Amino acid sequence: MDAVVLTNGKLTVEVLPEPVPTSGQVVLETIACGICGSDLHCARHARTFTEAARATGMSMFDFDVDRGLVMGHEFVARIIDLGPGLGESDLPSRLRVGDVVTAHPVVRTPAGFRSVGYSNDHPGGFAQRFVVDASGLVPVPRDLEPHLAALTEPLAVGLHAVNESSAVARGGAIVIGCGPVGLATISALRAQGVGRIVAADLSPARRVLAAALGAAVVVDPRESPAVAAWRAEGGRGPVTCFEAVGVPGMIDRTMRELPSRSELVVVGLCMETDRFEPTIAISKQLTMRFVLGWTPLEFAASLAAIAAEPARVAPFVTAEVDLAATPEAFAMLASPEHHAKVLVRPNGR
Amino acid sequence: MDAVVLTNGKLTVEVLPEPVPTSGQVVLETIACGICGSDLHCARHARTFTEAARATGMSMFDFDVDRGLVMGHEFVARIIDLGPGLGESDLPSRLRVGDVVTAHPVVRTPAGFRSVGYSNDHPGGFAQRFVVDASGLVPVPRDLEPHLAALTEPLAVGLHAVNESSAVARGGAIVIGCGPVGLATISALRAQGVGRIVAADLSPARRVLAAALGAAVVVDPRESPAVAAWRAEGGRGPVTCFEAVGVPGMIDRTMRELPSRSELVVVGLCMETDRFEPTIAISKQLTMRFVLGWTPLEFAASLAAIAAEPARVAPFVTAEVDLAATPEAFAMLASPEHHAKVLVRPNGR
Repeated sequence: MDAVVLTNGKLTVEVLPEPVPTSGQVVLETIACGICGSDLHCARHARTFTEAARATGMSMFDFDVDRGLVMGHEFVARIIDLGPGLGESDLPSRLRVGDVVTAHPVVRTPAGFRSVGYSNDHPGGFAQRFVVDASGLVPVPRDLEPHLAALTEPLAVGLHAVNESSAVARGGAIVIGCGPVGLATISALRAQGVGRIVAADLSPARRVLAAALGAAVVVDPRESPAVAAWRAEGGRGPVTCFEAVGVPGMIDRTMRELPSRSELVVVGLCMETDRFEPTIAISKQLTMRFVLGWTPLEFAASLAAIAAEPARVAPFVTAEVDLAATPEAFAMLASPEHHAKVLVRPNGR
Repeated sequence: MDAVVLTNGKLTVEVLPEPVPTSGQVVLETIACGICGSDLHCARHARTFTEAARATGMSMFDFDVDRGLVMGHEFVARIIDLGPGLGESDLPSRLRVGDVVTAHPVVRTPAGFRSVGYSNDHPGGFAQRFVVDASGLVPVPRDLEPHLAALTEPLAVGLHAVNESSAVARGGAIVIGCGPVGLATISALRAQGVGRIVAADLSPARRVLAAALGAAVVVDPRESPAVAAWRAEGGRGPVTCFEAVGVPGMIDRTMRELPSRSELVVVGLCMETDRFEPTIAISKQLTMRFVLGWTPLEFAASLAAIAAEPARVAPFVTAEVDLAATPEAFAMLASPEHHAKVLVRPNGR
């Protein structure tokens, strides 16, 4: 089968052996798989990525950068085979072979959980076929265009960030940065009925997407700081602010702008050492929440939210490519003006 | 009257005019007034202190470093006179002239609230007499040794930190740093029934005090990291950890030790830029709460807690000095081996 393989920082299309499921696993045929910001980071800085995984005890994201790696953890796929000893009646949610699913991108191994997509031994959705645990399968509703289900995982990240915050209780929030993580946060806020969503991004294209996904007001922070825009919308007192940029200095800059008693949710993954002024954070009595990933319930809720409003989330997908065009798509995504979410279709349409 | 005056970083005993109350104010005669860590900082780095106050919008702590300043905001005192138009029946809590009180160290002026103790025009408790707003007076119970009521304000800081955290719900906490703020936190945790309090400090004298005030286990972090000690006590899963050291690097070090999902309450005021690794905070999904000060209810609750267990908090006071010895006491407090809380007695015993 064909797959896009990352070896020593280079992406190439290669022919790999067919995946072999073990007990409790199923073989999936990829319909579509999104390119995540972490994939871009991993392709560019594989060594930093694995070093950070090791330093922070996240061994499930550790891999050997000199061996080949097939990324892709934002997939929608079709069940085509079951592992040894597994019958259709063992599948969750009355699933059967041939059904369209998404799934938690993890496999349980004797050595512990391993990531599907960031492990040398567990290829992800940038291959034509791959293997996941049956227990993590989630059925895609039949009336949903399958490719939108590839947004389940990235939108679950936004839902988790919102669930960990006080934004819903406050009825409003600020989102700094409208890349995929910021957009997912906006989408989750809107899906939960938050009306006063103020978003900020330097990129005009991203600002258009932020409005499409549910932001009430979207500003260019060079012209209007997000907190000022939030006040102009009637925002008073403490606010929940999602920092979804993830570059050094953004936390400090946001702390200086926020009103006292605000909540700063850090959902943008900054891979470098960052600095801030404790006197500012203390004098304002800020709360900072660092969030990551999602729970199985949030994963399922994310797909349900997509199925409830497919037209609203559809603009998130800005392009679809085949395997041959995938290395080029990684290069394109470096520029925020061109794309939000690019889906890879390893088996054509 | 006599007072200890700070001018351009130098403390001297000077004769000042008697304070004159305006409408709504009372004149207090100081019984005892504690030296706070912020006082030490202000004496050593007055310019940095006022610059930070201005930069963070805390104008009530802004003053002219070239003019004289009488510090002292942790006081117990006797009401000796009432401002124009004020009668005894206007005092809160049925107070009368001659009664022993503590009070919120603030005065309301036409320009807004001003700090008593960090304002050129509003001397604090390192003077024989000073002025506060009648509305902030809190009566000291008659059966409490008056000098212990000088601990109301510093212990309220610990109570506020605990109230802002999940420590009571968790039934346990770690306290890093057993200076006055850390000790106040330990005392508040204990007063609220938290049993598993693990404290850490480099200083043997402070470790003894931490145990006296209520810590179940006190470690030298060079020998046993606090989180390891907490686990040895049966602590599992996320923990609430109070960072009460306030020097650059402590937040980073603590983040590396803490279990996933823990809560880091930053109560130690670090006046310098600090650094941390966002990848570590995000991978552990930490929550950071920056806290400061107290509410009027917490101030009153702090005094009630002292009155409920005076013998437990008494070791907090390690020395009492007169005005002449106060400059020397500031110098002594630079070394943690000698003192926790030093009380100044401007009118003798």
